[in-house]
Amino acid sequence: MADAINLIIPIAGIAAVLFAIYLARDVLSRDTGTPAMQDVAATIYEGAVAFIRRQYTTIGVLALAGAVVIGLIIGLVEGEDISETSVYGGQLGILTGVAFLVGAICSMASGIIGMFISVKANVRTAAAAQRSLVEAVQVAMRGGAVSGFLVVALSLLGVYGIFAAYGGLGNELSVREAPFLIVGFGFGASFVALFAQLGGGIYTKAADVGSDLVGKVEAGIPEDDPRNAGVIADLVGDNVGDCAGRGADLFESTAAENIGAMILGVAVFTIAQASGWPNPEAWIFFPLVVRAFGLLATIVAMFFVRGREDENPMNILNRGYWVTTALSVLGLGFSTYVMMQTGSDAVGNNGIPAWVWMFGAGVVGLATSVAFVYITQFYTAGTYRPVREIAEASKTGPATNIISGTAVGFETTFVTAITIGIALIVSAFLGSQAGLFNERGDNVGTIFGTAVATMGMLMTTAYILAMDTFGPITDNAGGIAEFSKADASAREITDRLDAVGNTTKALTKGYAIASASLAAFLLFSAYIDKVNLILERQIERGVREAGTLLEAVNLANVDVFVAALIGAMLVYFFSSLAIRAVGKAAQAIIVEVRRQFREMPGIMDYTQRPDYARVVDITTKAALREMILPGVVAVATPIAVGLLLGHEAVAGMLMVGTISGVMLATVLNNSGGAWDNAKKYIESGNLKDEQGNILGKKTDAHAAAVVGDTVGDPFKDTAGPSLHVLVKLLATITLVLAPLFIR
Amino acid sequence: MADAINLIIPIAGIAAVLFAIYLARDVLSRDTGTPAMQDVAATIYEGAVAFIRRQYTTIGVLALAGAVVIGLIIGLVEGEDISETSVYGGQLGILTGVAFLVGAICSMASGIIGMFISVKANVRTAAAAQRSLVEAVQVAMRGGAVSGFLVVALSLLGVYGIFAAYGGLGNELSVREAPFLIVGFGFGASFVALFAQLGGGIYTKAADVGSDLVGKVEAGIPEDDPRNAGVIADLVGDNVGDCAGRGADLFESTAAENIGAMILGVAVFTIAQASGWPNPEAWIFFPLVVRAFGLLATIVAMFFVRGREDENPMNILNRGYWVTTALSVLGLGFSTYVMMQTGSDAVGNNGIPAWVWMFGAGVVGLATSVAFVYITQFYTAGTYRPVREIAEASKTGPATNIISGTAVGFETTFVTAITIGIALIVSAFLGSQAGLFNERGDNVGTIFGTAVATMGMLMTTAYILAMDTFGPITDNAGGIAEFSKADASAREITDRLDAVGNTTKALTKGYAIASASLAAFLLFSAYIDKVNLILERQIERGVREAGTLLEAVNLANVDVFVAALIGAMLVYFFSSLAIRAVGKAAQAIIVEVRRQFREMPGIMDYTQRPDYARVVDITTKAALREMILPGVVAVATPIAVGLLLGHEAVAGMLMVGTISGVMLATVLNNSGGAWDNAKKYIESGNLKDEQGNILGKKTDAHAAAVVGDTVGDPFKDTAGPSLHVLVKLLATITLVLAPLFIR
Repeated sequence: MADAINLIIPIAGIAAVLFAIYLARDVLSRDTGTPAMQDVAATIYEGAVAFIRRQYTTIGVLALAGAVVIGLIIGLVEGEDISETSVYGGQLGILTGVAFLVGAICSMASGIIGMFISVKANVRTAAAAQRSLVEAVQVAMRGGAVSGFLVVALSLLGVYGIFAAYGGLGNELSVREAPFLIVGFGFGASFVALFAQLGGGIYTKAADVGSDLVGKVEAGIPEDDPRNAGVIADLVGDNVGDCAGRGADLFESTAAENIGAMILGVAVFTIAQASGWPNPEAWIFFPLVVRAFGLLATIVAMFFVRGREDENPMNILNRGYWVTTALSVLGLGFSTYVMMQTGSDAVGNNGIPAWVWMFGAGVVGLATSVAFVYITQFYTAGTYRPVREIAEASKTGPATNIISGTAVGFETTFVTAITIGIALIVSAFLGSQAGLFNERGDNVGTIFGTAVATMGMLMTTAYILAMDTFGPITDNAGGIAEFSKADASAREITDRLDAVGNTTKALTKGYAIASASLAAFLLFSAYIDKVNLILERQIERGVREAGTLLEAVNLANVDVFVAALIGAMLVYFFSSLAIRAVGKAAQAIIVEVRRQFREMPGIMDYTQRPDYARVVDITTKAALREMILPGVVAVATPIAVGLLLGHEAVAGMLMVGTISGVMLATVLNNSGGAWDNAKKYIESGNLKDEQGNILGKKTDAHAAAVVGDTVGDPFKDTAGPSLHVLVKLLATITLVLAPLFIR
Repeated sequence: MADAINLIIPIAGIAAVLFAIYLARDVLSRDTGTPAMQDVAATIYEGAVAFIRRQYTTIGVLALAGAVVIGLIIGLVEGEDISETSVYGGQLGILTGVAFLVGAICSMASGIIGMFISVKANVRTAAAAQRSLVEAVQVAMRGGAVSGFLVVALSLLGVYGIFAAYGGLGNELSVREAPFLIVGFGFGASFVALFAQLGGGIYTKAADVGSDLVGKVEAGIPEDDPRNAGVIADLVGDNVGDCAGRGADLFESTAAENIGAMILGVAVFTIAQASGWPNPEAWIFFPLVVRAFGLLATIVAMFFVRGREDENPMNILNRGYWVTTALSVLGLGFSTYVMMQTGSDAVGNNGIPAWVWMFGAGVVGLATSVAFVYITQFYTAGTYRPVREIAEASKTGPATNIISGTAVGFETTFVTAITIGIALIVSAFLGSQAGLFNERGDNVGTIFGTAVATMGMLMTTAYILAMDTFGPITDNAGGIAEFSKADASAREITDRLDAVGNTTKALTKGYAIASASLAAFLLFSAYIDKVNLILERQIERGVREAGTLLEAVNLANVDVFVAALIGAMLVYFFSSLAIRAVGKAAQAIIVEVRRQFREMPGIMDYTQRPDYARVVDITTKAALREMILPGVVAVATPIAVGLLLGHEAVAGMLMVGTISGVMLATVLNNSGGAWDNAKKYIESGNLKDEQGNILGKKTDAHAAAVVGDTVGDPFKDTAGPSLHVLVKLLATITLVLAPLFIR
């Protein structure tokens, strides 16, 4: 039974891929709407495909170069430091390089396919909105779920496949080493995610800000007006930033967390083996099994995405989410029961079996996921105090709107930090009660409890990701309906869906950052483990004194402090570069749209069609050019710190960089989301002056709120999400390159 | 000689106090200008005195309560854990409480006296401007220097006096313990500084933002128009925020650094004593001696604040700064030569004496001080790229202005972190060459090198502080000249001085944050030392197992990670509360000014005089009410973390909170300064459109820049400076209360 349960991993992975294919076919078979809709959709499709083709060509080349460089570096560093007996030097380099490349390819594949479906689902959602709200929700959600399932399934199958190929299913030594060997997979995934999120994020906001400024501000035509040559680029941007970018981000999260948990699992495996448990390797496979159950839960939940026509669409989506969560609890209980109750030492404190404690830790993780869904809603939805406060502040102009939004953004760190803190402390406590001690008497259950909580939290990833991709699909559907002058009833439905989509996009960011911080904590422990593994080998070989293991990081050491300072600085500097990149790319769009207005005078009276493709092309080039500098800074900084200041300093940089990144991303995401919804709050006529008159569109308060919304755009859609990836990239890059940094 | 040099401490301290009295008398004896000027000045004076009286009454009560609580806590925690032999339990509590109170009183005294002179110097500067630029510069600078000298001298005399009173000049045991006993002095200083900076910062920006919004935006009258009832509150605000607030901030910095360095000096003292040096306690007094030479250098430099009428006033100030720096190098060389060259072990690497290495470390500190002066200038002065970039971005509206300013603010963390990092690494390297090893073979010179660098950096504090207070004095002088309708020539001079004052205010913030981060690093080491001192005593007494000292902080420990997360969160949450407090207080002003416009119709046609005093009174009450919540959060969070998570977790919170605070303060100060100067850049007619037309006042670009300036106000004058204090408060509070947190 305990061995057989591992089979769930490939089974659930393949089932999810097949289900994604089924959903994709279902979406593609749907009605594509009026010819006008098809026309716009085709233009968006072309632009998106053109961007993705160029972007992934660039990323592919960078990834290939990265794989070779990493393979060479690892190969040239003394192999005996790293590997126990099975592989050496050059061989290790090749294995790491290949893992990197497979991770990169899986990440790229899930990004490309998800994005392809999403630009097909948008027009079909618009078409469905002509008939039925529920049908439109289903089309958008199924389109989004294709991404969700592929991302999680490919990460699961990729890690499992590499693990199997590298002997993880074979002899015992390999079982211990394989998780370290497959870290390259996670690094490949982060590497691709970094550039995908940066490039996509810069594209989407440059197009948004650029076409707004040149259209609304300069030419005085409405938003999304077909005369604005930048408007198609804007619609393309939603797809390449939100779908492809966030897909890569969460692919990376799941992969990194799988690997981090497996490395910790190895530590427990050793203990379990020594205590004579029947299936010690259960601890290593446990993270993957839990993930597999999460996938199965999500497949079932997709059939519950249904409701009444007059229902709030958010309720329809929430129904599926709650089904996913409930089934995940069952799956978690089953897997802990089967995998953690065997063996003589399996009884924890108070006579309660170990598996019950671990199950509790996993439930804490699931609860954290639910908590973040509601926290984000509180801070970014118009029904609560923060957004209202910003809307009120808009009455006295843009300055007070910005000040108020900043204060709200800063404030959101409080509940974020406290929630993550409670989740960690409670799950660590539960884990510590499971009775798992290593030979030195350390309570290993503590850290494993936090690992299980992380696993629990990430069980719902596929569903969350589907909700996220729902956002750009409905956003696009709205744009298509507007552009193709669809019926008012259809536009009313797409508007409602678009508003829900904004909320789901915000939720995902809260979820992504919380899971990133939990995963980073695991990976930090994994880094310390890996450094000590190398140091132990060096001590065994007599090239290092005994007693020089990295027990703890000495923050009073100058190098560590400086590295920590650099970690905290990096997140601001990287964000600065990302934000500035949006400005530069937007400038390129402004120049081109201005040129078209000037040289094609027929545009203004609708007698000439603007050259949308050219703007798309220019945006593509600008976004890809501008993503390079922040990307290189992100990759080069940890390497430079490691080479100059050594392995202990890297640990300081890693921890402080992670914490600072999580906090800054929280601020950027939430202030951006709150500004966006404060504008929508005013547009919906909820703001009133002292006499009770509604202050809606075209008032000064609305103009002030538009300023806040524009400021928030690069915060929440470029810098914030790119920081998620940066945080995890820091973890994987230092884990892979640890041998280089040892002093 | 080596003993005699200690006498320089009381001599320089008393000389500086006498010199401050001389300067104050000189300023007070000057011409007070036209009756109109005297009238406005009297109103400002009254408002400032009223605020200070109420604020310091509140703070005094809080400080008294704080002293009692701390005395009780320390008294009740087992005294034998803390003290070696000389003092016990209750006695220790009393000593700490008294030290706290003396620190608080010295801080309050220097704030009150400095601020009193500053509100007298403003009108005299305006009067002098009717005759001569140089004379105006001298009056303003001498007025500012009263604060500068008092702050540094009182901190020096206070630390020296308490040290002497607590037996530090007596038997050997006390020499080792006294620095720990006087930590209470630093805590008292930080406690007062926190509320002084918060209350003053909230007052100044609430008055500024509130009166601008109700005057310029609602009533459509110009800035600083006498019809606006809030305008006097605005002028009062410059004094209470910038003079009193920053004075308290830097008082705290110098006190904390003195104490931190003395604690480290104790470590070296022990080694020196064991090696049979003739005057081991030189290491303890060294920080105070160096500071004393810095004071003397500044006194001399004051006579070099002179120049030609047609000169850039900044050059006149820079002349004095360079004299201070040059004389400080000499003083540093002399004190290292005398105090660190005796003893048999005093030869470092390469046969170069220890004192030369330490002198080098001190020079690194002085160079860092100079570097920060120029870095801040680059980022916030209109002649360089960053401010121009923001001004250019204003052409496309407030949103791009804000985005660009944010990107600049984030970017400034780069050079800040790198400069601090280089200063620490180089000074640590130089220190490590001095050949100082403790009995365990640790190279103690490393950390002492960074301490000497900090001392070097802070030698110029008095001069920097004088330049800082120069800012609000000239700002007020400008307001008085405007208000009293002085001659155009006088107004031209006060405008030029005001622009220079903006630069000097920005410089001080850069300097303050850099010195705060260096001081925090020292205090962190001091915290670890203190914890280990307590643990050692517990081990000796058999209540704790051997080998449980805090060698390093384990970041992979869940409690430490959570505490670190809370540290990073605290700086954002605290800033959020401070920013929001400005908004609430501003709202109170808006309501009152509106009421006056409504109920006193004669104001608009100048037939009725607005009730300025009432607005001042309301602002005072609002600012004092709003300072309580952020202040309490700042004090309560480290205590709560310590009680709940223990001493090791506190170390994590301390380090990550410090680093995050330094970075966020850098962002807030510099973005605020850059926005301010981008507005001034446009007002000076430096911005041109594509056709080369000047885009000056009353253009859309200027309006956009005004939005940025308003947003930057609470960033750079409330939240940023309050964060400086928070960072140091974290250090002193945990150092004093460490006995409570031991697990």
